[in-house]
Amino acid sequence: MKEIEVVQIKEVTLKDPIMIEGLPGVGHVGKLVADHLVEELKAEKIMEIYSSHFPPQVLVMSDGSVRLVKNEVYAYKSKKQDLLIIVGDHQSATNTGYYLIADLFVDIAEKYKVNRIYTLGGYGVGHIVDKQVVLGAVNNSKLVGEIKKYGVEFKENEPGGGIIGASGLVLGLAKRRGIDAVCLMGITSGYLVDPRSAQAVLKLLTKILDMDVDTKALEERAKEIENLVAKLKDAERTEIPKEMRKDEDLRYIG
Amino acid sequence: MKEIEVVQIKEVTLKDPIMIEGLPGVGHVGKLVADHLVEELKAEKIMEIYSSHFPPQVLVMSDGSVRLVKNEVYAYKSKKQDLLIIVGDHQSATNTGYYLIADLFVDIAEKYKVNRIYTLGGYGVGHIVDKQVVLGAVNNSKLVGEIKKYGVEFKENEPGGGIIGASGLVLGLAKRRGIDAVCLMGITSGYLVDPRSAQAVLKLLTKILDMDVDTKALEERAKEIENLVAKLKDAERTEIPKEMRKDEDLRYIG
Amino acid sequence: MKEIEVVQIKEVTLKDPIMIEGLPGVGHVGKLVADHLVEELKAEKIMEIYSSHFPPQVLVMSDGSVRLVKNEVYAYKSKKQDLLIIVGDHQSATNTGYYLIADLFVDIAEKYKVNRIYTLGGYGVGHIVDKQVVLGAVNNSKLVGEIKKYGVEFKENEPGGGIIGASGLVLGLAKRRGIDAVCLMGITSGYLVDPRSAQAVLKLLTKILDMDVDTKALEERAKEIENLVAKLKDAERTEIPKEMRKDEDLRYIG
Amino acid sequence: MKEIEVVQIKEVTLKDPIMIEGLPGVGHVGKLVADHLVEELKAEKIMEIYSSHFPPQVLVMSDGSVRLVKNEVYAYKSKKQDLLIIVGDHQSATNTGYYLIADLFVDIAEKYKVNRIYTLGGYGVGHIVDKQVVLGAVNNSKLVGEIKKYGVEFKENEPGGGIIGASGLVLGLAKRRGIDAVCLMGITSGYLVDPRSAQAVLKLLTKILDMDVDTKALEERAKEIENLVAKLKDAERTEIPKEMRKDEDLRYIG
Repeated sequence: MKEIEVVQIKEVTLKDPIMIEGLPGVGHVGKLVADHLVEELKAEKIMEIYSSHFPPQVLVMSDGSVRLVKNEVYAYKSKKQDLLIIVGDHQSATNTGYYLIADLFVDIAEKYKVNRIYTLGGYGVGHIVDKQVVLGAVNNSKLVGEIKKYGVEFKENEPGGGIIGASGLVLGLAKRRGIDAVCLMGITSGYLVDPRSAQAVLKLLTKILDMDVDTKALEERAKEIENLVAKLKDAERTEIPKEMRKDEDLRYIG
Repeated sequence: MKEIEVVQIKEVTLKDPIMIEGLPGVGHVGKLVADHLVEELKAEKIMEIYSSHFPPQVLVMSDGSVRLVKNEVYAYKSKKQDLLIIVGDHQSATNTGYYLIADLFVDIAEKYKVNRIYTLGGYGVGHIVDKQVVLGAVNNSKLVGEIKKYGVEFKENEPGGGIIGASGLVLGLAKRRGIDAVCLMGITSGYLVDPRSAQAVLKLLTKILDMDVDTKALEERAKEIENLVAKLKDAERTEIPKEMRKDEDLRYIG
Repeated sequence: MKEIEVVQIKEVTLKDPIMIEGLPGVGHVGKLVADHLVEELKAEKIMEIYSSHFPPQVLVMSDGSVRLVKNEVYAYKSKKQDLLIIVGDHQSATNTGYYLIADLFVDIAEKYKVNRIYTLGGYGVGHIVDKQVVLGAVNNSKLVGEIKKYGVEFKENEPGGGIIGASGLVLGLAKRRGIDAVCLMGITSGYLVDPRSAQAVLKLLTKILDMDVDTKALEERAKEIENLVAKLKDAERTEIPKEMRKDEDLRYIG
Repeated sequence: MKEIEVVQIKEVTLKDPIMIEGLPGVGHVGKLVADHLVEELKAEKIMEIYSSHFPPQVLVMSDGSVRLVKNEVYAYKSKKQDLLIIVGDHQSATNTGYYLIADLFVDIAEKYKVNRIYTLGGYGVGHIVDKQVVLGAVNNSKLVGEIKKYGVEFKENEPGGGIIGASGLVLGLAKRRGIDAVCLMGITSGYLVDPRSAQAVLKLLTKILDMDVDTKALEERAKEIENLVAKLKDAERTEIPKEMRKDEDLRYIG
């Protein structure tokens, strides 16, 4: 077991692909959007990433079988826009691992000649959010004007504590290789999985990419989770299930 | 001192051995069963595993001498079924160590041409357990039917938080090498060492392996521990002795 | 991404430079002074230092763009005294990283033939400070007399818990290479960013270096922060913004 | 800066030396005894050990100068018995470091052909100790009888949680190289530096070594510390100074 092991499932040729990254984080906003895209677009898995920096556990699937924690890369080909979508179960469990894995994502972007990366996350504000807002950050200030036009908000020095985790690091590390990258953060309470915030991010992302993506499945998932939360609140043991909780202090994580 | 040091105590030739792994974890269920098997079957120690990822301590034995924390591999030969049994004092104390040591177990399985691994653990439910239930997980969904027949229960997406530690990782890592593996988890409160849960797991395991193993010693150990706990509860300082406590958050650990 | 990556921005030739180090720590005293010097002297950036030991995050700048956490080296050339100034966003997030990065600073000192290093920090006393005092420590006892003359105080065995972080380690590591180094610690409560304490340190440092540095900007920054703190105290959510908080237990950090 | 750096200060030739190790731990018992021996015997420093696994800080000495955290080896030559004494400011701050540094001590023992090691520590019992007792542990059960004769007590399976840290690991690691080692643990409350317990350990150790060592200085140090504690108790801020506190959970550390 090496620190990082990449399994290439399939070789694909992509035309000017855009990379989208959405991993677990605040409100699982990034993960919800990226998982939805993979499902909705029927994107094809091309890579699996394993690492001894991931939490030392396996996940149990609905058929009773287990699998190692991993990150995955999916490819989507279409006449309009080719995509590389990075999804996963967890982010790194160690400090160094965060850097190594984010840098691997940029390696992959370079390999496929990606010239724009969108990383997706949530921005926890610590209170219930009434109006869905998507906050932006870029790794090249020239992008601000373009992204603002779609309704993404840029607030001076926000998030104040920076962007923790892969969504931020990918921007920083891609900058060093000359790849433009944008982080879209859905405002969320930070306390719960937030598919409403994910819908807001998805809506903006598809507008930016000029793609049509059905949001019904995400809407349903939102309702499922909302029902589940409601049920849990009723139940005696109101503890939030582990998979719905944020892993660490995810308040500022993308 | 390398990260991992393997001392081969004895070379053995085994015929189609099955590997059994039981290390400290929730309720020490896995450890109790594996230790019992080694003792009852008079299995022979063939390997010792030392690692700088284990907790930095030595254990004091009854004769006043100490030894490093270690994991051990025992071999058992019989007409019916040869076994490799992995036991130990502790699991890894570091994130990376968990992966390295579990991967070593799979190396050993490969070396001895093991074609089935059983990892044993406890599944903490947070309340006193009335009825002994053994939950299963596999690394190949084809195994579910076979294992269910013995009375092992499979619940969709349970344990919800995944299986943390060696028992889970061995399944995940063995899958990549094409070795079938099953995790048997005794339901337990998660608060105390649970030899009752261990008995339930042992009963199922011996049924699966079609082996006769006397459970009297385990029954006695159960009573000893129950008496000890009762005495401790009476004593002013009711703190649970360190060796009986779970090491970390072992609620979901196998 | 290596453990440490140094980007040489510009090659400079310096004459007998003095190195000044000021990173985030107790009361951000060291950082405030070093940042002020860079700005006031219009020092020129010559190196950027990246590391997987830094916290895994990016910082958001006022133009909406982000950058990786880094440390930087600035050069200042003048007829009187050449300087190398080390500033940065964060100190290491890992134990080993602290040593590696401090040792790199001493490598840089050696490369530029620095024969005196001043490291700057705060010394948290746990209560409001009325009188600004600067505490000193050296890596060569012969320096005590010289430094005392400028009004720096030396108290036997203080700080009692030692000096944690880069400011201390640089002294210790420079000693092994025969480079004299002095740590100047402004007494501060340890609860808040303390530009008053920074002013006291700056005043002493410029006296020692026999340099004129306008402190107006620092005074303004002090007032800004004091206003911000006052406003925050008024606001319902009086939590101190992350960037103003001390990273860990910074009570004794330089 | 390597993980471990050994500076050989002086080469010495020793005749059948015995190694004594006493580092900070429960009640600082081991450190007090080893430091006392070095001082009383005027032992000569022959090695300094630095490591990036030690806490990232420097210590401030009485003359205002600082030095890196280190461990040291002293040599003592006499007609009766040559000694190698290991002392230090801190134990490792990382899991792996504990193993690496303890293994280095055994390397040194091997280099100097040591055939007996005594490691010194405290055993915290959580309550005030009336009668000074010294608990023993060995890495070779044949030693129990010999050591018992001197009044060292051996209690079955005590310490129950094992011996954490260098004093334990040295026993375990020396065993693998065939070097006999004994751990002497002074019973102590575990809450404070305990020179009384150190005196008990010193008394036994010198009896075992058949050496005369004046204990007056240790007695004085005991009184100094007791006075300091008394004064601190009187003072408003009764917090125990950092240098007198145990570093981690030192209850069971040797």
